[in-house]
Amino acid sequence: MKFASDNNGPVHPKIMEAMVRANEGHVPAYGGDDLTRSAIEKVREVFEAPQASVFLVPTGTAANALILGSLTKPWDAVFCSNFAHIHVDECHAPEAFTNGAKLTPVGKRIDKFNSSELKTAISGFNPSNIQQSGHGPVSITQVTERGTLYGLDEIAGIADVCREAGVPLHLDGARFANAAAALGCSAAEMSWKVGVDAVSFGATKNGALAVEAAVIFDPARAVEFRRRQQRAAMVFSKSRYLAAQMEAYLTDGLWLETAGEANRLAGLLEAGITGIDGVEFAFPRQANMIFVWLPRFRHRALKEAGAYYYIEAGVLEGDDPHEPLLGRLVCDWSVKEADIAKFADAAQGARP
Amino acid sequence: MKFASDNNGPVHPKIMEAMVRANEGHVPAYGGDDLTRSAIEKVREVFEAPQASVFLVPTGTAANALILGSLTKPWDAVFCSNFAHIHVDECHAPEAFTNGAKLTPVGKRIDKFNSSELKTAISGFNPSNIQQSGHGPVSITQVTERGTLYGLDEIAGIADVCREAGVPLHLDGARFANAAAALGCSAAEMSWKVGVDAVSFGATKNGALAVEAAVIFDPARAVEFRRRQQRAAMVFSKSRYLAAQMEAYLTDGLWLETAGEANRLAGLLEAGITGIDGVEFAFPRQANMIFVWLPRFRHRALKEAGAYYYIEAGVLEGDDPHEPLLGRLVCDWSVKEADIAKFADAAQGARP
Amino acid sequence: MKFASDNNGPVHPKIMEAMVRANEGHVPAYGGDDLTRSAIEKVREVFEAPQASVFLVPTGTAANALILGSLTKPWDAVFCSNFAHIHVDECHAPEAFTNGAKLTPVGKRIDKFNSSELKTAISGFNPSNIQQSGHGPVSITQVTERGTLYGLDEIAGIADVCREAGVPLHLDGARFANAAAALGCSAAEMSWKVGVDAVSFGATKNGALAVEAAVIFDPARAVEFRRRQQRAAMVFSKSRYLAAQMEAYLTDGLWLETAGEANRLAGLLEAGITGIDGVEFAFPRQANMIFVWLPRFRHRALKEAGAYYYIEAGVLEGDDPHEPLLGRLVCDWSVKEADIAKFADAAQGARP
Amino acid sequence: MKFASDNNGPVHPKIMEAMVRANEGHVPAYGGDDLTRSAIEKVREVFEAPQASVFLVPTGTAANALILGSLTKPWDAVFCSNFAHIHVDECHAPEAFTNGAKLTPVGKRIDKFNSSELKTAISGFNPSNIQQSGHGPVSITQVTERGTLYGLDEIAGIADVCREAGVPLHLDGARFANAAAALGCSAAEMSWKVGVDAVSFGATKNGALAVEAAVIFDPARAVEFRRRQQRAAMVFSKSRYLAAQMEAYLTDGLWLETAGEANRLAGLLEAGITGIDGVEFAFPRQANMIFVWLPRFRHRALKEAGAYYYIEAGVLEGDDPHEPLLGRLVCDWSVKEADIAKFADAAQGARP
Repeated sequence: MKFASDNNGPVHPKIMEAMVRANEGHVPAYGGDDLTRSAIEKVREVFEAPQASVFLVPTGTAANALILGSLTKPWDAVFCSNFAHIHVDECHAPEAFTNGAKLTPVGKRIDKFNSSELKTAISGFNPSNIQQSGHGPVSITQVTERGTLYGLDEIAGIADVCREAGVPLHLDGARFANAAAALGCSAAEMSWKVGVDAVSFGATKNGALAVEAAVIFDPARAVEFRRRQQRAAMVFSKSRYLAAQMEAYLTDGLWLETAGEANRLAGLLEAGITGIDGVEFAFPRQANMIFVWLPRFRHRALKEAGAYYYIEAGVLEGDDPHEPLLGRLVCDWSVKEADIAKFADAAQGARP
Repeated sequence: MKFASDNNGPVHPKIMEAMVRANEGHVPAYGGDDLTRSAIEKVREVFEAPQASVFLVPTGTAANALILGSLTKPWDAVFCSNFAHIHVDECHAPEAFTNGAKLTPVGKRIDKFNSSELKTAISGFNPSNIQQSGHGPVSITQVTERGTLYGLDEIAGIADVCREAGVPLHLDGARFANAAAALGCSAAEMSWKVGVDAVSFGATKNGALAVEAAVIFDPARAVEFRRRQQRAAMVFSKSRYLAAQMEAYLTDGLWLETAGEANRLAGLLEAGITGIDGVEFAFPRQANMIFVWLPRFRHRALKEAGAYYYIEAGVLEGDDPHEPLLGRLVCDWSVKEADIAKFADAAQGARP
Repeated sequence: MKFASDNNGPVHPKIMEAMVRANEGHVPAYGGDDLTRSAIEKVREVFEAPQASVFLVPTGTAANALILGSLTKPWDAVFCSNFAHIHVDECHAPEAFTNGAKLTPVGKRIDKFNSSELKTAISGFNPSNIQQSGHGPVSITQVTERGTLYGLDEIAGIADVCREAGVPLHLDGARFANAAAALGCSAAEMSWKVGVDAVSFGATKNGALAVEAAVIFDPARAVEFRRRQQRAAMVFSKSRYLAAQMEAYLTDGLWLETAGEANRLAGLLEAGITGIDGVEFAFPRQANMIFVWLPRFRHRALKEAGAYYYIEAGVLEGDDPHEPLLGRLVCDWSVKEADIAKFADAAQGARP
Repeated sequence: MKFASDNNGPVHPKIMEAMVRANEGHVPAYGGDDLTRSAIEKVREVFEAPQASVFLVPTGTAANALILGSLTKPWDAVFCSNFAHIHVDECHAPEAFTNGAKLTPVGKRIDKFNSSELKTAISGFNPSNIQQSGHGPVSITQVTERGTLYGLDEIAGIADVCREAGVPLHLDGARFANAAAALGCSAAEMSWKVGVDAVSFGATKNGALAVEAAVIFDPARAVEFRRRQQRAAMVFSKSRYLAAQMEAYLTDGLWLETAGEANRLAGLLEAGITGIDGVEFAFPRQANMIFVWLPRFRHRALKEAGAYYYIEAGVLEGDDPHEPLLGRLVCDWSVKEADIAKFADAAQGARP
């Protein structure tokens, strides 16, 4: 019953096989090999963006921080949600890679913000007052950090505000595939077609070993990216093994297949615990993450039964068996249906 | 005839198999898994340093820059050789990770410096004059960037100067294994036993996919390392695949076996071209790298025959067929003896 | 009618005379002169802190940013109020001098926060989770950016939380003298005696030309300050002229005299407009700053009469003559009583 | 006998009087005052550069570092001489303000380099190899750190190499006035007319209290300067007192008058010690600095007679009375002729 994180899951066999297949002879290092070129081309194809600048990096934080570094001046504000991964989970990598930008939360909700809240936030800074922060990029996360989704129209609305303000829009797509699968849209439809300027296109959480693509649609914005990547010690000598992952991930729609499967499994899990006494969903389940309030006694029973997942609010220790604690349940493609059933049973069968 | 770089070679089958073996089920992310713990323990064992702080990172520049970041104040000088990789090949990653330290070449030779040159260099800065650079760490590369080796006594001499000056000694061991195999010494003998305080312990060039260990012998110097690594976007979620590489690399002496083989092959290559008319070795061949002057016509013949390697000084185009150009030839464990023979023949058989 | 800022006022004659007096012959540069030593000693005396580390710098932002740089790791949160000068008015100097710390607003009020809000804010970060911000210093401003004061007990309460959390407490005292004069307390009583660890001790706004003292009570926290100051290009060669200002400022209680006078004048101004129809004070006037809502027609009349001050919320242009706009009125010691009377008359006499 | 530094001298009375004169009433802060505007206009006039971007800062290091910050990418080399102030005397401020550029010495001489050495240095970096440093600005110092001068043709030659390489040329003019007075040329002739792109125009060493102008001839290169200055805590609230200094400095040719006088006095000093037994000039005296070898016994006699100056090489303590030690003697406009005569007598009259 492993629902702790899609970071904990294995590499998809097709991706591992691609790495093994790439392991033949000598090829040029640092991205000069054919496989790297072809994987980058594949990313462009999937995004229907033949001009896009694409870079392969090993971690999601690297993609986020290098993109933000390319889009942001040290004195700029970066607008994001209160719980944005870049703001609360990256140990100031964005501050480091931008050389001191200020991550500035927008709105009140913890997962998302809307175009009107963004407008208010941006207008809070007067760019001609140089004592204040300048107008820097806007960054949204899709799937959000609370498992919800921005609708395409919501993204378009936010992009409109960005365009008016003259600032670029970044999408942290650590779970881009889960979102695309859930919305039934293409990569292009969820990015440049609704006004997104740069995407951190995740693969690691969805079946890869360690690879993400930084995609910047206007190459003029990416001219320094490679320098920044090199200076960040993020250029792999044996680039072919990053490329092999990305190539396999995008071949025959594997990325949407694994993501769709993860979403489906999360749906099963949601259904399995729906209606159990005391169960309350904190956010609508829209992709592969569930945030759910459960009474303490149910959490205890689940943990005793061997379930792995995080408790996001509250502590397992405590006197009141009925106090609700917030659990986070994440599925990747490799989760077993039997484990889901077992989890639902354990949750159902718990006694205070 | 692939002699361009040990970065261009494949992953050793045993290492690839270890990664495949690790690809089973869910395990904790970000280094909380058993395999990461065990790989770190293995590094400590190999270095006979049970207290050492050890961190797995994907690139050699990451190991170097994170270690230097841990040992250096922004206003310090980092003492290194004129051609140190950290100085001329890392796109200012050391400057970035130290927040502005000054890499300060020592001595006149391009591969190495000695303890007396180091003494002179350090004494050039008065640490009580705060307008000048402070005394920061010393960094040596072993195997050096020109394929030569520091003898253990030379390292010990340098370490003595460091101790007197109160500064730590870092060893960039991108080819640590090749050096240890060539010197016939243990990891401990080539590091803390001769006064080295921190090692970038390379594996990528010697058969791994992408993993290096940052080894800091005094844990007090490493308390902030993990924060720095996280902030540098260098913590892998699926840490087990870094660990699997390092574990396999250190199991049953594989690291010394592949390095010894690379050195042996380079020796064969050296022997193969020794005595050819116009061939002059720029540096003694001591490990797996050869720097050799060859007349232009021999380079041309080699390139036409399909040999891959870098020309470090001079250009292939040019009128004088006898002008010597400096070639760099590198062997990894996977180089074929037949290719070596073919190379020697092509070099020998060339005509102006 | 110059109420725009105490930054706009002249240098007090006694301070200017001290600079002229210091202008005699050659003396050692970079702080090696007797006058610098004596001015630093004077700061220690006024703070009753003979061991304190004291540095003279030309701007308040320099004092704040260099102190924060000394107290903060790049991955730490700096806790401050929503409107803290360091957060919204220093163009990311604190981010630059800390190399990427995250300024983190505490509480809901815009001028101050209390110890309980601080506790909540600090406990929002788990220092053992290295993806999150670490626990860095707390910074309060006294006089606050909205002209109010922290009581000594309030500071002590905040300092208690800091001590428990193991983080230092910084006080941005750009208007330290105005606060001390208003509270009738000594420099020591408003700083280390209530648990403050470091003070930006302002003089510029209160009669100096350009000098502030960075005061760090525990010298162990200041060992790198001088390096940071030099690297920040903030060490004056002709240090004697910074010193002469500070020396005169602290001689015969001039600092409290000018501050007391500024406060008294602000009190007169407050009294002068109290009771005028539509006048509403946004914050209690506690030192030399007034934040007051006035109907638009009164602002217009004042501006036409030649009054200088900032409108902080709302715009002078607009249809409704009765719409309240927020004005900020600041007095320094040089403001004329006649101008205050004239201002009150103009405010009173305005017609919609 | 105060020959230690032109940093140690007093403020010229005309400049101090201008500051006193400016001390009247309230004026806008942060450079919004008329005096700042007029001082900036005056700098443009003196440089015959009506379009130039001009900024007033309090220290020479600030001018240098902020200009380099504006001209340099973090991964660029900054080309300068071995003894450039920016390289060896600014505690890594240039590294800090450029966020990690690499100061790269050019040539072998310690005071100057020539266009051919510069060409060699720049061509040592291949800008398309992103592992290496990029091509950043070139910086020369005039008067050099060893008291010598670049001729206008030498500067023009260096500027030609810069233009070819597509990099800007910065001139650190801490003693700009002394150079212009010595060469008998105008500010324009020593800057943009010979291809200089940016000047740190010093005043502090030549009679001001603390003010330098950063002059960037192409405003497109200066668009971020003001942000950088603010973020560096280098914007004075009471800007009028920086402006008053610069205004007075440039009025009626005061800057050339004080510089010419300093040069003349240094010439007298040079003449006074010329021909004394054991005296050898290390560099030609071309402006207001003298570098001279004197036997130890003469240094001792001078120090005993109360002379202040630095010994740059060798130590006063030592057995051999005849060992030559390198003294540095600097004159500002305020040095007394009687002191020069006294110095020459003491040097002459010394006995081993």
